[in-house]
Amino acid sequence: MEKLSISDARNPETIGVNAVIQGWVRTRRDSKGGFSFIEVNDGTCLANLQIIADNTLGNYEDEIKRLTAGCSVSIEGQVKESGGKQATELLASNVIVHGWADPEEYPLQKKRHSFEKLREWAHLRPRTNAFGAVARVRNCICQSIHDFYQERGFLYVHTPVITASDCEGAGEMFRVSTIDPASPPKADNGEVDYTQDFFDRPSYLTVSGQLEAEIYATALGKVYTFGPTFRAENSNTSRHLAEFWMIEPEVAFNDLNDNMDLAEAFLKRIFSDALQKCPQDMEFFNLRIDETVIETLQKIVDSEFVRLPYTEAIEILLASGHAFQFPVEWGCDLQSEHERYLTEQHFDGPVILYDYPSTIKPFYMYVNDDGKTVRAMDVLVPKVGEIIGGSQREDRLQVLESRMRDQDLEPEEYWWYVDLRRYGTVPHAGFGLGLERAVQFVTGMQNIRDVIPFPRTPGNAEF
Amino acid sequence: MEKLSISDARNPETIGVNAVIQGWVRTRRDSKGGFSFIEVNDGTCLANLQIIADNTLGNYEDEIKRLTAGCSVSIEGQVKESGGKQATELLASNVIVHGWADPEEYPLQKKRHSFEKLREWAHLRPRTNAFGAVARVRNCICQSIHDFYQERGFLYVHTPVITASDCEGAGEMFRVSTIDPASPPKADNGEVDYTQDFFDRPSYLTVSGQLEAEIYATALGKVYTFGPTFRAENSNTSRHLAEFWMIEPEVAFNDLNDNMDLAEAFLKRIFSDALQKCPQDMEFFNLRIDETVIETLQKIVDSEFVRLPYTEAIEILLASGHAFQFPVEWGCDLQSEHERYLTEQHFDGPVILYDYPSTIKPFYMYVNDDGKTVRAMDVLVPKVGEIIGGSQREDRLQVLESRMRDQDLEPEEYWWYVDLRRYGTVPHAGFGLGLERAVQFVTGMQNIRDVIPFPRTPGNAEF
Repeated sequence: MEKLSISDARNPETIGVNAVIQGWVRTRRDSKGGFSFIEVNDGTCLANLQIIADNTLGNYEDEIKRLTAGCSVSIEGQVKESGGKQATELLASNVIVHGWADPEEYPLQKKRHSFEKLREWAHLRPRTNAFGAVARVRNCICQSIHDFYQERGFLYVHTPVITASDCEGAGEMFRVSTIDPASPPKADNGEVDYTQDFFDRPSYLTVSGQLEAEIYATALGKVYTFGPTFRAENSNTSRHLAEFWMIEPEVAFNDLNDNMDLAEAFLKRIFSDALQKCPQDMEFFNLRIDETVIETLQKIVDSEFVRLPYTEAIEILLASGHAFQFPVEWGCDLQSEHERYLTEQHFDGPVILYDYPSTIKPFYMYVNDDGKTVRAMDVLVPKVGEIIGGSQREDRLQVLESRMRDQDLEPEEYWWYVDLRRYGTVPHAGFGLGLERAVQFVTGMQNIRDVIPFPRTPGNAEF
Repeated sequence: MEKLSISDARNPETIGVNAVIQGWVRTRRDSKGGFSFIEVNDGTCLANLQIIADNTLGNYEDEIKRLTAGCSVSIEGQVKESGGKQATELLASNVIVHGWADPEEYPLQKKRHSFEKLREWAHLRPRTNAFGAVARVRNCICQSIHDFYQERGFLYVHTPVITASDCEGAGEMFRVSTIDPASPPKADNGEVDYTQDFFDRPSYLTVSGQLEAEIYATALGKVYTFGPTFRAENSNTSRHLAEFWMIEPEVAFNDLNDNMDLAEAFLKRIFSDALQKCPQDMEFFNLRIDETVIETLQKIVDSEFVRLPYTEAIEILLASGHAFQFPVEWGCDLQSEHERYLTEQHFDGPVILYDYPSTIKPFYMYVNDDGKTVRAMDVLVPKVGEIIGGSQREDRLQVLESRMRDQDLEPEEYWWYVDLRRYGTVPHAGFGLGLERAVQFVTGMQNIRDVIPFPRTPGNAEF
């Protein structure tokens, strides 16, 4: 007999079809008329399918009337028009119980559980409405990311997770090693002898695939990375993870304006796909999590992003008369309160800030003719602040080497990166988007730990 | 002026168009007639575009006639019909040189370099024909993977890279840590005090996302992972990497037969997409790397995979009269020579072996009624041997716990995995495909280090 997903079985076009549905019981309700209503979910959509099981079924008394939340079932029957709120229901001709879920023990009972509590049950939380919806929207955004870049002729490039170099020059990194931590081998000078480690040298988890993506962009034109990146920061906030997924496009011959165009089109595409391809899940988030989330996304999709030089942003902030906790002056790094003032109060929409002071940005950003600013850009959105950071890259050999020395980096250690400017250098630009920040923004979920399947934060590596 | 990719500019439909092309010079040849032919590649296809630059151009003598391999250029001009082997060429009206590549220093000169040598220049090798083709075919396979699962309603799930558990119970794992390796904190008993490490416990890089994927499959039905996995094995072979990408689908309510159907359809899809979507690159591999590669792939796409119980495979091997280096008897793990005999000599095509002895397989595989075998499967292909390994998972609580104890594992340490069998357990199955093995098979490349952008192997973590 044909298998039907619950998503398909809820479609009125399947009325009359005999089929099997398979999933997990959410609730059971017995009617006095000698039958039971069973709500079953299989993860293909937010909604359940209502099953009508009557007492003529052989296992009605000893199995069906014992079904509780979490039990797994295969149910044969015919899809019927429903008299209730949903279009269809299934009249069961056979109910097979695969696994029970003792209601005395099964944690997910009908009462609502806090997201904190559900983090302890990370192996069961995808069975809830909220986490099922997060999983579907996250999946939709991931596919939207690939579609966006593939349609534009970008190549997906896997940059390494384990690396001996440090992209930012200052990231807090996790060490990767196979040496015995109880008694590490020592060299004659008493220091740890990394020539005896797996990679013959100190190695770390990457903080960004950018530098390696530049290698591919300066050979093959348009590329993007999409993979896990790591920060060993001891940050216990609702916006930080030690392990998160990042998307980093890098494009040869693009300047900062092209980069802004790409970032704007990219954000609009993933927001628009979430709204169009996950309407039920998005309605759920709008109803239960954040009542402004659909309106906010739609507004961004329909808007033109403001493009504002850093210097003008400082003038706006100084003229605002607003009492900021952190004082504003040219040369300072903008704080969240400043970014939110610009997007939420002054412009009421997304803003791309660009041409930041060179002193607060890394060595690889292109130095403008003024000698004071670099072609950096940050995309700011209401409520979240920075969601994308990027730049045109410094493609002039001498300027790059001089900027590296200014920041106490040895060009020799980055010999391969420097070579990209030595042989056939080209203008190029790229940016990074943290996937989880994007999923948080789209779903309205408060805590970033609730938009990744198994969050890694200080003290948390279970599951 | 419109930008055209070289792939598009080689299409006769663009004849007559005025456009800019941008890329890197491969060769330059000067004609006595007062003009030069410049071959330019931009990574969008294997082929170059031929540029005609004549001596009326302002920078003809001092720049154009100095162009050598690796120089980067933007060239304006008109696409013309070509008299040569290619359909089109570009008549230049303006040539801008962005970056030079001193022929005395630039490593990629016209002579052919060995793949070993090119590994030392991993930052330049994507500029060669072979590595450009690998990058495009790898990208094609990645998108094919996503398309295959998305079209079938699977959800893409990101399982963690950093984990405190060990999927196989026996993998050699990399430790992830932030403690000072020179003087690690010690507990009172003299052992390393991991409560002072970032995650409060010993943590590692994952060897597989399977166990976590099972969590999502037993909540949402059909899922797949696609991410980096790690092995700290000291293997310096042409088939092993310390860091590689793996695809692991996991499906609730699937049994071993469904699993075989999925694996067969999946392999056929990615092979077929590579042949159809990258015909030029595949012809290159067939011509330069392995003259059987297109025929082999097409044969697999057109074949029906043989499905053979392990016990029958042993009988075939014993009856073969073939002198194997490793002796064959029921209960032994098959070696590469045995697998290759079956696929290359006996069946001359792909074979799915299944129902392996329980003693040689991990705890999570479903035990058959005979008590001696488990519902494991390996997909074997000619020349490579095993390309996919998978199983139906043990979904019976007591059997699983007993199998774990047999293999000296504590069910309590896997409490969340065991819970999946305690609450609403269902039959389910899945498998793993190593991306790089698949790319090796499709391209015919001999060494796995040449099908991943930046290979990690013992002693190698540069770039």
